[in-house]
Amino acid sequence: MSTLSALSAAIPAPWVAVDGGVTAPEGFRAAGVTAGLKASGRPDLALLLAPEGAVCAGSFTTSLVRAACVELCAGRLAARGGRARAVLTNSGQANACTGERGLADSLTATEAVAKRLDLAAEEVLICSTGVIGVPIPMDILLAGLDPLVAGLSTTGGDAAAQAILTTDLVDKQVAIEASLGGRRVRIGGMAKGSGMIHPTMAPPQATMLGYLSCDAGVPAKQWQAMVTRAVQRSFNAITVDGDTSTNDTFVAFSAGDPLDPEHLGALEQGLTAVAQHLARAIARDGEGATCLIEVRVEGCRDDAGARTIARTVCGSSLVKCAVHGRDPNWGRILAAAGRAGVLFNPGAVELWLGPFQLMAAGQPLPFDRKAASQYMADRAADAYLCADTVPIRLVVGAEPGWGVAWGCDLSAQYVRINADYTT
Amino acid sequence: MSTLSALSAAIPAPWVAVDGGVTAPEGFRAAGVTAGLKASGRPDLALLLAPEGAVCAGSFTTSLVRAACVELCAGRLAARGGRARAVLTNSGQANACTGERGLADSLTATEAVAKRLDLAAEEVLICSTGVIGVPIPMDILLAGLDPLVAGLSTTGGDAAAQAILTTDLVDKQVAIEASLGGRRVRIGGMAKGSGMIHPTMAPPQATMLGYLSCDAGVPAKQWQAMVTRAVQRSFNAITVDGDTSTNDTFVAFSAGDPLDPEHLGALEQGLTAVAQHLARAIARDGEGATCLIEVRVEGCRDDAGARTIARTVCGSSLVKCAVHGRDPNWGRILAAAGRAGVLFNPGAVELWLGPFQLMAAGQPLPFDRKAASQYMADRAADAYLCADTVPIRLVVGAEPGWGVAWGCDLSAQYVRINADYTT
Repeated sequence: MSTLSALSAAIPAPWVAVDGGVTAPEGFRAAGVTAGLKASGRPDLALLLAPEGAVCAGSFTTSLVRAACVELCAGRLAARGGRARAVLTNSGQANACTGERGLADSLTATEAVAKRLDLAAEEVLICSTGVIGVPIPMDILLAGLDPLVAGLSTTGGDAAAQAILTTDLVDKQVAIEASLGGRRVRIGGMAKGSGMIHPTMAPPQATMLGYLSCDAGVPAKQWQAMVTRAVQRSFNAITVDGDTSTNDTFVAFSAGDPLDPEHLGALEQGLTAVAQHLARAIARDGEGATCLIEVRVEGCRDDAGARTIARTVCGSSLVKCAVHGRDPNWGRILAAAGRAGVLFNPGAVELWLGPFQLMAAGQPLPFDRKAASQYMADRAADAYLCADTVPIRLVVGAEPGWGVAWGCDLSAQYVRINADYTT
Repeated sequence: MSTLSALSAAIPAPWVAVDGGVTAPEGFRAAGVTAGLKASGRPDLALLLAPEGAVCAGSFTTSLVRAACVELCAGRLAARGGRARAVLTNSGQANACTGERGLADSLTATEAVAKRLDLAAEEVLICSTGVIGVPIPMDILLAGLDPLVAGLSTTGGDAAAQAILTTDLVDKQVAIEASLGGRRVRIGGMAKGSGMIHPTMAPPQATMLGYLSCDAGVPAKQWQAMVTRAVQRSFNAITVDGDTSTNDTFVAFSAGDPLDPEHLGALEQGLTAVAQHLARAIARDGEGATCLIEVRVEGCRDDAGARTIARTVCGSSLVKCAVHGRDPNWGRILAAAGRAGVLFNPGAVELWLGPFQLMAAGQPLPFDRKAASQYMADRAADAYLCADTVPIRLVVGAEPGWGVAWGCDLSAQYVRINADYTT
């Protein structure tokens, strides 16, 4: 596994990868413990604590059916103008569709954390992930809080990144560093998510969960705007199974001395790179996946339309199966693009699968089908998260809009994982 | 297999099932032959001929990427005010994304049919289904036309229904009869479709292909309006894999003496029942499916919104996998409804799985999970197309809008079928 080397290839200068995940930035502490919420006996309770004065930007699921924890987080961030200090995460139960008890449990949990950290309850957020409709066993959660708080440390990023996982096969974390105007700035992040992945988040709106820490101070409103743009280009551009979750949440903390405004552009580049790394890691670890699919759409009227086409192609069951079978059945790509609801001229389309050009000016080109299939197989067999990407490029016109989306192949293993999740 | 008995249960009086498929109605002739377009050596060329004076209503895919045959059919029906006599179908090649050659091939094929039937080329339509991006081997198609035309008969419905299939496991045809004002009226239909099924058709707009014949005359505009409403409640309410095809087409012929307008309501009921039977048959025969899923949504603002929620639930990969595993993981149903983009109050939701009530007033209810799972297994194991339906009922409020959608479970077999379709 080469998570960091893969990221290094993708992050823009002056940023470089460092160790430490969410606790790489100055002043952030984290912990993860096994409270016993999961039948598997794996870690299931995580806590991230930001330094005093931190601001927090949130993005939450746009689903009409939102988990109690999402209601609580969105409400608290809105009420406090983006000020929060800590986020508790329990994995095992999503606390969605749990009625009034669900909200009461979220309140109780955050109050218990606040008390132990000497914070106001409103400064504490909570994320839940797991089975929908099952209440959190609160006695188990509450009993886990003392060891959790005792375990908070500046090297706890890794433990926290483990404790937020559900069906994930690997943890997803990253940290980067740059010198901006002579000052060391770090951004860290962690995420979870493998199934029910098609985030459509809006501010103050997966089950993907994403967390970001940054030790450069940015005013709350500006930070939220930067985070919102980064979410559009990362989490909102991935799909595993098209199912938007009731619990999708991304929280991003900014703390520390204010950053000189002239470096905000560089900071946003770093922020976007971290969010994209985590988003791609979620897509690559999609349930049953054997490779990452990256679809780049160019020549569209605007970026949003291009991203919509790209994510529609990534989400097509038929495209996903074709990639799984290393089958260059490109007609399915065009069919998916055609139903995306974005206007383009099919007669002007160019289509590429890696180095193979499959269409020009809307007409199919002859290509070596066997070589293309071998190319797909070679790419997919390569190192984790790094080269195991099947790249598709679709040019739909000559206009300036472009966008990228990420997905994964659809395997029989996906069906096995999801055919008996609760029984 | 009990196709007809299953339909009898669903069709409204005074209609009763009869044999004969599309050739059951007076004056309709059909044929199906093996021309050699398919590697499998199965029948691949079908022709349906309506009596003189027939009108034809069409519904075609709303995809931006439309096959040459769709362009031709939509154009001809529009230009001639819904007048057509015959429809040729080739299976094996979709003739989509085939550039200028595709349109030329469609023209050539229909001209060749018209010549043999002594019709104007504009009176002949063409439907193609199969692999996208592969041109039709025209020499093979043209060589098949003489035996095809020679085979036209008033009992040819069955042969035609076989020849339009691709990955379908069973043919899909039905016919019904009623006495309307003392006059015998018959409606026949056939369809194909198993994958790339998420029809979103609009008039003059699967790859599902559907054909309907009726021996009662209805004026063209009125017929098109009736057919459009029937399509909304049938083909546009099914999904197999969420992938809207480049080729989806439904053509419905009405011929014979004009029907007394007082019976138009009864005729539309029959028309809708035939369209729904064919649509359900497509969903049940979805690639890799082991059962039908029927989702009924009630209490919505309007019928269209209810259908949107119902089809979103049917299309959820996670719901489909849960049904495949006979797993009553109902939280996924709520999650899918929540992302449908239709406003409702999650706090008012009632949810039923067959006889098991799972939620009331937005709160989960205790239920016998083992019994519910057994119920799903029992339903799914029953006779083909008849009782093998897992019924889900979601009440989202107290308003009058309601709708039904149909889908199927997602199995490992679906992945196997689609992972190597072209290679």
